[in-house]
Amino acid sequence: MIQSVDNPKIKEISKLLISKYRKKEKKFLVEGKHLVEEAKKIGVLIEAFSTEEKEGYTQVSQAVMKKISNTDTLVKEVGLCKFIEKNILTNHILILDGVQDPGNMGTLLRSACAFGFKTVFISNLSVDIYNDKVIRASQGAIFKLNFLFGETKDFILQLKEYKVFGTNVMNGKPLETIQPKEKMALVLGNEGNGISKEVQGLNLENIYIPMDNTESLNVAIAGSIIMYHLR
Amino acid sequence: MIQSVDNPKIKEISKLLISKYRKKEKKFLVEGKHLVEEAKKIGVLIEAFSTEEKEGYTQVSQAVMKKISNTDTLVKEVGLCKFIEKNILTNHILILDGVQDPGNMGTLLRSACAFGFKTVFISNLSVDIYNDKVIRASQGAIFKLNFLFGETKDFILQLKEYKVFGTNVMNGKPLETIQPKEKMALVLGNEGNGISKEVQGLNLENIYIPMDNTESLNVAIAGSIIMYHLR
Repeated sequence: MIQSVDNPKIKEISKLLISKYRKKEKKFLVEGKHLVEEAKKIGVLIEAFSTEEKEGYTQVSQAVMKKISNTDTLVKEVGLCKFIEKNILTNHILILDGVQDPGNMGTLLRSACAFGFKTVFISNLSVDIYNDKVIRASQGAIFKLNFLFGETKDFILQLKEYKVFGTNVMNGKPLETIQPKEKMALVLGNEGNGISKEVQGLNLENIYIPMDNTESLNVAIAGSIIMYHLR
Repeated sequence: MIQSVDNPKIKEISKLLISKYRKKEKKFLVEGKHLVEEAKKIGVLIEAFSTEEKEGYTQVSQAVMKKISNTDTLVKEVGLCKFIEKNILTNHILILDGVQDPGNMGTLLRSACAFGFKTVFISNLSVDIYNDKVIRASQGAIFKLNFLFGETKDFILQLKEYKVFGTNVMNGKPLETIQPKEKMALVLGNEGNGISKEVQGLNLENIYIPMDNTESLNVAIAGSIIMYHLR
């Protein structure tokens, strides 16, 4: 049992609560038994920790658990995982061009999984998918998706066989008139500013969701409605 | 200019950051110029406060502003408002039976407004709509809707002329097969437990959203997809 928060391994692991260390080490943490088991299933679990004595888990004190977890309520299990790297391109792709709110990102991942957008591209200006709030809101979807990272414009320029849809009211077609394609990608932008200008310049086919009396929808809502329609 | 956080009026107003005082006084606070102006437009603004000197606002010190606002970042305007009471029944009604997360509630209000569900019933077990996080996530939709409060079962029993839809995979019909009705209500339940048992017993027409590989959607996503479809 690891008792001390000064244990060198624990000190190293606790650094993964910060995004830049996750990126450097290519490792992240998940909280709760359900997510630890999902991580194990897909082969990214390195080590599991629990405040209770049980098989497959390294037992740690409550103080150690507090040091390696992020939620206010006491967590009983934490999993140390390596980054999920599959690097394939499925037929339906969700492209997140600067989504910043962890709740929106996690919810979008959950919806992408539900509606068959199994590859998710994350731009450099988006929130870190390995953020604990993203993982929680994704409800395990993070382990069922394939992620790619980089500059949105460079990525879209490679998608020659794909129809790429954007979201912009200005020159958009109403969602009901849009036909799903075999190979397609949907770009969603930042909560405040939408899709970045250089990406808007790429001649996307813009979609809008008809609505009354409201300027815009939450990005996770808009994205999920469109993915449901296109699935 | 009100300088002191011990000013009796300020002390009274700051209590409205707590739900039980809001309910007792039938008053609430909004943060930011946009929401203060929306409140004024519909006639529920009692008094507006700002850290700057400007017409229509009572000037207050930064310390006072901090005492009557809830966000970490410094707010410049706060509006003291009375509860929004219209007490009418529109043709499309959203019924929230125990939605607990303020972000989900606010997002659902924003979508309800966008898709024409202009009356929202809030059950006694749901989060307070006048919570600052709900108001922020609603993006001003709170001022464009008509709210009713009470026990969900009692309310539904009064809706004799309405088709009442529920959300339950168990005996539900896929969303695509559902026809909108002139007078209809949609019931959404708690994030963990769904619609309460006594409400499920009321013979709702259940809807489910077809999906792969995922147990459920976030309630704000599911509700918004259904409202979009039924609008």
